Amino acid sequence: MKNFGERTLKKNYVFTGKIISVRRDDALLPDGKPCTREVVEHPGGAAVLYVREGKVALVRQFRYAYGEVLLEIPAGKLERGEDPKRAAIRELSEETGLIAEDLTLRFILYPTPGYTDEKIYIYEAEAAEEGAAHADADEFLDVEYIPLEKAYRMIDTGEIRDGKTLVALQSYRLRHITP
Amino acid sequence: MKNFGERTLKKNYVFTGKIISVRRDDALLPDGKPCTREVVEHPGGAAVLYVREGKVALVRQFRYAYGEVLLEIPAGKLERGEDPKRAAIRELSEETGLIAEDLTLRFILYPTPGYTDEKIYIYEAEAAEEGAAHADADEFLDVEYIPLEKAYRMIDTGEIRDGKTLVALQSYRLRHITP
Repeated sequence: MKNFGERTLKKNYVFTGKIISVRRDDALLPDGKPCTREVVEHPGGAAVLYVREGKVALVRQFRYAYGEVLLEIPAGKLERGEDPKRAAIRELSEETGLIAEDLTLRFILYPTPGYTDEKIYIYEAEAAEEGAAHADADEFLDVEYIPLEKAYRMIDTGEIRDGKTLVALQSYRLRHITP
Repeated sequence: MKNFGERTLKKNYVFTGKIISVRRDDALLPDGKPCTREVVEHPGGAAVLYVREGKVALVRQFRYAYGEVLLEIPAGKLERGEDPKRAAIRELSEETGLIAEDLTLRFILYPTPGYTDEKIYIYEAEAAEEGAAHADADEFLDVEYIPLEKAYRMIDTGEIRDGKTLVALQSYRLRHITP
């Protein structure tokens, strides 16, 4: 395989926020030529697919960057240094009230590798107990249990368009079609 | 349905780069309380799934933000105001030399809605002719034609982990299993 590696000369932070930090690095291309690379630093996310009696738990939530309400599997960002599985259990509980048992890691998703370093850990919960939801003060959301066949149709119609949700639902569907 | 909308009070640009711009907006939550929202502005991307004789065209490329070489379907960002289908044809040609015919839009993917406004238009090419690749000066990549069954295994092993590539390959697999 060819040498593709790029080498960092200098990390330059241009923004440090609550969710993301942004760098514009000085780097070297594989052929030694200088370049700049824009990087969004993110602590990573954790998400949970939970299906019960043929229905999938989805969260309906306004997403500011798009100005749209999206339907997504429960998810949230990792606290600094947090174990992804612990974050998945925490976020599921905060958003839906469900206390997950037996989480299986299905994917470590790289959502859009051109500029972010975010990794989204997608788990599947085999079982969960009901509890009380307790979302963050700046989170406004509704939980819905949507029949799988309807959710699959909502993928076809574009009503479900969030990356982690598409990956999780299509994977579930594949595993329940193929032997 | 409840009112989830958040209202922008002021857009504050904190970084303007070549690929992305970043804002930290002052906004109002649905209950009228003030909040800040971090947004990565991106012009959008276009990607192409192309399968020929049971093999999928994938691009192997170093991704600076992760410091890793990833395997992805051919893709790139839209030029300002560019039609996504035209961008898909252009990027496929630049990266692989393939001249696509009969592109079908399969997804408008929202890769990670917590902070970016990027939309990735995923097309499938029914046919393509061979031409000469001509990547950008700062793109170093290899094109590989990987048998579908191997690509599906690479999803299971985590060797393929890019969001748009997972969504496109899972969808292809589903459409060729179910009637």
